[in-house]
Amino acid sequence: MKLIIINGPNLNLVGIRETDIYGPQKFEAYLKKLRKNYPDITIEYYQSNVEGEIINAIQKAGFLYDGIILNAGGYTHTSVAIGDAVRAISTPVIEVHISNILARESYRQTSVISSGMKGIICGFGLESYRLAVESFRKMI
Amino acid sequence: MKLIIINGPNLNLVGIRETDIYGPQKFEAYLKKLRKNYPDITIEYYQSNVEGEIINAIQKAGFLYDGIILNAGGYTHTSVAIGDAVRAISTPVIEVHISNILARESYRQTSVISSGMKGIICGFGLESYRLAVESFRKMI
Amino acid sequence: MKLIIINGPNLNLVGIRETDIYGPQKFEAYLKKLRKNYPDITIEYYQSNVEGEIINAIQKAGFLYDGIILNAGGYTHTSVAIGDAVRAISTPVIEVHISNILARESYRQTSVISSGMKGIICGFGLESYRLAVESFRKMI
Amino acid sequence: MKLIIINGPNLNLVGIRETDIYGPQKFEAYLKKLRKNYPDITIEYYQSNVEGEIINAIQKAGFLYDGIILNAGGYTHTSVAIGDAVRAISTPVIEVHISNILARESYRQTSVISSGMKGIICGFGLESYRLAVESFRKMI
Amino acid sequence: MKLIIINGPNLNLVGIRETDIYGPQKFEAYLKKLRKNYPDITIEYYQSNVEGEIINAIQKAGFLYDGIILNAGGYTHTSVAIGDAVRAISTPVIEVHISNILARESYRQTSVISSGMKGIICGFGLESYRLAVESFRKMI
Amino acid sequence: MKLIIINGPNLNLVGIRETDIYGPQKFEAYLKKLRKNYPDITIEYYQSNVEGEIINAIQKAGFLYDGIILNAGGYTHTSVAIGDAVRAISTPVIEVHISNILARESYRQTSVISSGMKGIICGFGLESYRLAVESFRKMI
Amino acid sequence: MKLIIINGPNLNLVGIRETDIYGPQKFEAYLKKLRKNYPDITIEYYQSNVEGEIINAIQKAGFLYDGIILNAGGYTHTSVAIGDAVRAISTPVIEVHISNILARESYRQTSVISSGMKGIICGFGLESYRLAVESFRKMI
Amino acid sequence: MKLIIINGPNLNLVGIRETDIYGPQKFEAYLKKLRKNYPDITIEYYQSNVEGEIINAIQKAGFLYDGIILNAGGYTHTSVAIGDAVRAISTPVIEVHISNILARESYRQTSVISSGMKGIICGFGLESYRLAVESFRKMI
Amino acid sequence: MKLIIINGPNLNLVGIRETDIYGPQKFEAYLKKLRKNYPDITIEYYQSNVEGEIINAIQKAGFLYDGIILNAGGYTHTSVAIGDAVRAISTPVIEVHISNILARESYRQTSVISSGMKGIICGFGLESYRLAVESFRKMI
Amino acid sequence: MKLIIINGPNLNLVGIRETDIYGPQKFEAYLKKLRKNYPDITIEYYQSNVEGEIINAIQKAGFLYDGIILNAGGYTHTSVAIGDAVRAISTPVIEVHISNILARESYRQTSVISSGMKGIICGFGLESYRLAVESFRKMI
Amino acid sequence: MKLIIINGPNLNLVGIRETDIYGPQKFEAYLKKLRKNYPDITIEYYQSNVEGEIINAIQKAGFLYDGIILNAGGYTHTSVAIGDAVRAISTPVIEVHISNILARESYRQTSVISSGMKGIICGFGLESYRLAVESFRKMI
Amino acid sequence: MKLIIINGPNLNLVGIRETDIYGPQKFEAYLKKLRKNYPDITIEYYQSNVEGEIINAIQKAGFLYDGIILNAGGYTHTSVAIGDAVRAISTPVIEVHISNILARESYRQTSVISSGMKGIICGFGLESYRLAVESFRKMI
Repeated sequence: MKLIIINGPNLNLVGIRETDIYGPQKFEAYLKKLRKNYPDITIEYYQSNVEGEIINAIQKAGFLYDGIILNAGGYTHTSVAIGDAVRAISTPVIEVHISNILARESYRQTSVISSGMKGIICGFGLESYRLAVESFRKMI
Repeated sequence: MKLIIINGPNLNLVGIRETDIYGPQKFEAYLKKLRKNYPDITIEYYQSNVEGEIINAIQKAGFLYDGIILNAGGYTHTSVAIGDAVRAISTPVIEVHISNILARESYRQTSVISSGMKGIICGFGLESYRLAVESFRKMI
Repeated sequence: MKLIIINGPNLNLVGIRETDIYGPQKFEAYLKKLRKNYPDITIEYYQSNVEGEIINAIQKAGFLYDGIILNAGGYTHTSVAIGDAVRAISTPVIEVHISNILARESYRQTSVISSGMKGIICGFGLESYRLAVESFRKMI
Repeated sequence: MKLIIINGPNLNLVGIRETDIYGPQKFEAYLKKLRKNYPDITIEYYQSNVEGEIINAIQKAGFLYDGIILNAGGYTHTSVAIGDAVRAISTPVIEVHISNILARESYRQTSVISSGMKGIICGFGLESYRLAVESFRKMI
Repeated sequence: MKLIIINGPNLNLVGIRETDIYGPQKFEAYLKKLRKNYPDITIEYYQSNVEGEIINAIQKAGFLYDGIILNAGGYTHTSVAIGDAVRAISTPVIEVHISNILARESYRQTSVISSGMKGIICGFGLESYRLAVESFRKMI
Repeated sequence: MKLIIINGPNLNLVGIRETDIYGPQKFEAYLKKLRKNYPDITIEYYQSNVEGEIINAIQKAGFLYDGIILNAGGYTHTSVAIGDAVRAISTPVIEVHISNILARESYRQTSVISSGMKGIICGFGLESYRLAVESFRKMI
Repeated sequence: MKLIIINGPNLNLVGIRETDIYGPQKFEAYLKKLRKNYPDITIEYYQSNVEGEIINAIQKAGFLYDGIILNAGGYTHTSVAIGDAVRAISTPVIEVHISNILARESYRQTSVISSGMKGIICGFGLESYRLAVESFRKMI
Repeated sequence: MKLIIINGPNLNLVGIRETDIYGPQKFEAYLKKLRKNYPDITIEYYQSNVEGEIINAIQKAGFLYDGIILNAGGYTHTSVAIGDAVRAISTPVIEVHISNILARESYRQTSVISSGMKGIICGFGLESYRLAVESFRKMI
Repeated sequence: MKLIIINGPNLNLVGIRETDIYGPQKFEAYLKKLRKNYPDITIEYYQSNVEGEIINAIQKAGFLYDGIILNAGGYTHTSVAIGDAVRAISTPVIEVHISNILARESYRQTSVISSGMKGIICGFGLESYRLAVESFRKMI
Repeated sequence: MKLIIINGPNLNLVGIRETDIYGPQKFEAYLKKLRKNYPDITIEYYQSNVEGEIINAIQKAGFLYDGIILNAGGYTHTSVAIGDAVRAISTPVIEVHISNILARESYRQTSVISSGMKGIICGFGLESYRLAVESFRKMI
Repeated sequence: MKLIIINGPNLNLVGIRETDIYGPQKFEAYLKKLRKNYPDITIEYYQSNVEGEIINAIQKAGFLYDGIILNAGGYTHTSVAIGDAVRAISTPVIEVHISNILARESYRQTSVISSGMKGIICGFGLESYRLAVESFRKMI
Repeated sequence: MKLIIINGPNLNLVGIRETDIYGPQKFEAYLKKLRKNYPDITIEYYQSNVEGEIINAIQKAGFLYDGIILNAGGYTHTSVAIGDAVRAISTPVIEVHISNILARESYRQTSVISSGMKGIICGFGLESYRLAVESFRKMI
């Protein structure tokens, strides 16, 4: 099984930025442990701050991977175009968030990308990603 | 580890009701498999259609269990009082939904109980419950 | 033919409470006359102030009756869960109201339970119930 | 007893138009049966697509009939002027709809004409009209 | 000087309808007195319940009269098309209302026709019309 | 007959300020002509930029005058307290505006003072005041 | 091929009314040129200021023409009933507007008739009509 | 004089739950002191987490007590049915809240039960209850 | 203990104005009785119709009194500046209203001054003031 | 004449993605036919998923082409910056959409880019592009 | 060059009130330093808690000063009348705020006075005033 | 001291585009003068039309500069992700706008990036940038 994690804007700063919300661990360190945990699964990783490049990545992954784990960061709340990309491909996409976005600012409580998702996981810190991988293991 | 699943209104009809949305499997059958999968975890189960009895159950579970998995069904969107109960106890609560509620009617897209949750999982069918159990195994 | 009338909160006070809105006749007295009018139809009656018990009653009636006449009272405007129960069963449900709720306070002018109803009758005083019975006589 | 049914815009196409919503039966055929069912009641019929002509008809009926059965079609949601006409006369008016308008598009879920109505009946197909006649038989 | 009063829906019932709001005097009787008061001014009168005929009347009057006094009744709150007609002609139009519409139901407190008006007078009972005539005497 | 004109904030600058909206004539000059036109009516004049002093003036006038002509200027759209003062006295109050406020910025299109008014006149330039005086001459 | 252009309220004044928005050319003159341009297509023309007559025209055209080009003018933003008429027939309808309604007042930016349209063309002046004819030439 | 305090959901946890908001004192301990303070007044106490049982309690108290002190907790903001129960009885009801609900989350700032109340007291901690008792001593 | 009652706009007319809402008793008469009831408490009194003078009074009282009882009248719903003044001082402020403002017009149901209050009391008629005094006696 | 078609996010998947909405034909194939149809017009083509690159393309085209045909896809509903770019250049821009966006999800029914457009064409499938080319042929 | 700083409600308490938001420095001390920094500029100072006196001050300053620096405090969000005063004079006005009002409560994020301003500066603490002075030095 | 100016979409066209709003001077010419005015401050400059590249630039600048001057152009009103980037770094950011955005279209009057800003300056034309530089000179 081949999965890809696509991370959106400012997620390259996880472990550095607002650590009271996002925790002190860097994403790369977490990813290493995650891969070790699931040795039979290929877990690719892509990060971009550019909305359109995330769309490019989703479109490409739609033909090459068995599943996509998408944390669209701030674009979750504004990008109709990313939501369209998710619906445009047939590969299942799992939406994850590190924090519980429903317990934060009101503008983080609406999503324009979620309706095409296979499932949504949020609030578990970086463990949200592991749960997403876990869900793919069974689902496919 | 001792967990309890609390299911809200109409979830006693899963497997019977609107099976295109909620799937054809009965909850009890699923629960049996879930327990077998996690033999080292005690998984209690409670269901009620009455909002106040769900509050009673949350309050009691807050003193007796290591974690609560709550699917509040239709009360998710209306019950300030259940949200208060979740915040009133210190045991962590995971909110789960069988369907992707953000892809359904607009009134199902607001939640008044989510802000006190440890984490939220939705859209994976009955597998949402397993992911919640999985998350507790690591978290605690 | 077997019907059940399910009355929601405060409808046990009809004939006593706000008689300028709900009229001076007690429900039990009206029910007696109604049964006499339709001797070939069994008309059961259930009243509860508890939202969840109304859901219980709808679920049970869904397997035992040919039709349900539901006056959900104040829950009409707030109970997503009752609306879910109506959609969860296949027995047809008729929504009735004693007063014309569209001529009253604005919060009584939105309903969250109506979309699954077979039909809606309101404003005829207690006669709303008779019209509902009448409609079942032909419909089934 | 003398009643008049006043039908608004596009209701001349019932039985032809969107038959999945409005059913396959033509209104004239239904009316014939209805009159046969209630031989002691005179049931006049008027249809117009013009808002102002419906107001004319309501005003005239207000002096000549014992009751009005009004299906204002699309004007239900927009015509303050028809609502004014209903309030301007003393003859009781029953509002009917063929479909359950609360289960349809959101703009069909607000009414600006209902507050002056004696009663409202919707969702029973063409039978909504019979229930309205039935209600007049008792009421007057 | 040649003026025309154009009255909209249900204003033919003034003096008959809801006399607590609109007063007990019939419009024709009032008009007679008004004409006597202003012998040097021609005051034509037109009433229709049909939105489009009011537009026709405004368009025609735009070429033949020095001023229009318009009481659009219930169309005040809904008719973008009447507002367009007012802006389409160069003859000044005065909007009048018998009652103080800002002290009534909230849907009577928005107007879609007022922005093109020369002036607005409301709340003076039928005297609103005389004030409009008075304003034209000076203005032109 | 004794009337008082009460002008609110910035109306002391009429004839100086934004003359494309409010016209080039100073209020005092207009007032002189108005008094000459109605020699049998005492017309007092008061202006203040202070909301509370306008309330003081309304309260005092409520015991000493036969009528009040009030142009509350910018307070029209925000002062619940002025609206309360109008309702607190029994002397009739006419609301006037120089410009057609319904043809201007959207925040000028809501009024919180109008519901207690005897009548409203707007859009006639300074002539709005004369029409108000005219209306009192007949009304009382 | 047989088409009909149906024009709504105030469009009889094109070329006369607000020529900065709608241009200086009269519709009849434009229509003549249009017919010359498409000699193989019959282009009928109907205009009315009355909402209900536009509905009549749409209903009739639904049985006699291959396509309808509808400019509903001010009714675009308010007439649920015209939208119903469009959906009630099977003949394709193209919505046109002379001006770019999305660049004008906010109340012109919502449409209640568009959802049943085959296509929408706006902002090209009278050329919007030619583009609609052009689209039919290919489409059918 | 006979009063009853009816406490709603989660108020059984006062003194345990979120003590920074609700204070460290248990309700039972407070109640003992309150009764000692007012030896001539019978003060009954009822608590339930179930909305419908609160309605039952209000209905019963409406026939047996001189006054009701109601803290509906989270149901304050959602229960049309409790508001109906308050209006359905003639015994005066005082609404109390421990915290200043207008200084908390926005969803706690709307109440659907307050309009039928005799009076409202909030923000004084448990002392809100004493003030309510105090108010009854004088009022009756 | 030294308290001050600060009354806002139109409260100088209590006992005169809208006595069906505010009661027939003048405030000064009530105040006399209140002072007699609490001989050990100094109760100063200040009233102004001017928003800014109320702010002046709050600021001054913030340094000289043990508590403030504030009825801001119509400014309750509009004055961000009074709310700021309350938060700017450390003396506790109790908000009182004579009528139950949540049972009145919708614009009286939002407050912009309440979030900084120690407590809120409304609906008890003039007795609201006594309850506020009572609350200070214990609180300080 | 030199035109450029600028396509926004996910439009590179036309013919592959959601073919029930966007049709089965690939854009490149369509473009070939379009160019053949208009041999005297140069039709360049640019597609990007990146909002900022679309802005770059509009800015460049503003100096090199006679007209722009823009389908901004999902950015239509969110990109103030693309709207600014359209207004920043003097080359006319035609907005096109393949589907009738007013018949789809509500968030697709608001546009933030349309106010600067020369014209708008939507709902004709890929033919929307041809109509845009056609409109330029006459317009320039 | 002659400037005047006009400070609105509660700004007389800067350095005393909520020092975590507004800082510990008194305004008079700051003003002394500011004047020393710009010896060639006359900087007058006026403060009032009364909305109408601020309007008076703006009107007067409009004839006597080269520029106005206005911090309207809480009136920023509610005073249409102050906004009118700013537009009524030709002297340029700079709006300043000590705190970043867009990072505070939502009701502080709307301004009704800003549209007539020459420029706006906020969030720099008392330095906001110096930047305003600096801007005038260049601008005039 | 080392500062960087980051300009967002369409700001590369300043001096060319909509010069009535943004002025006739090109940004590069202005920058030259600005640098000459502050010879002791390094002022770097970066412009991009791509949202994600602006985020990249903010993230990089967060580690290398003493301050950032950000004009996010049209992204000011839509980019949650840029707002996140500002909060993610510790370098202070000043938001600037050339025009007074609060005096323009309503959609330009909400900002989703401002809450993390050190300060905001708008409306001074290009001088907004100099004031920002000036503010940094003192602040750091």
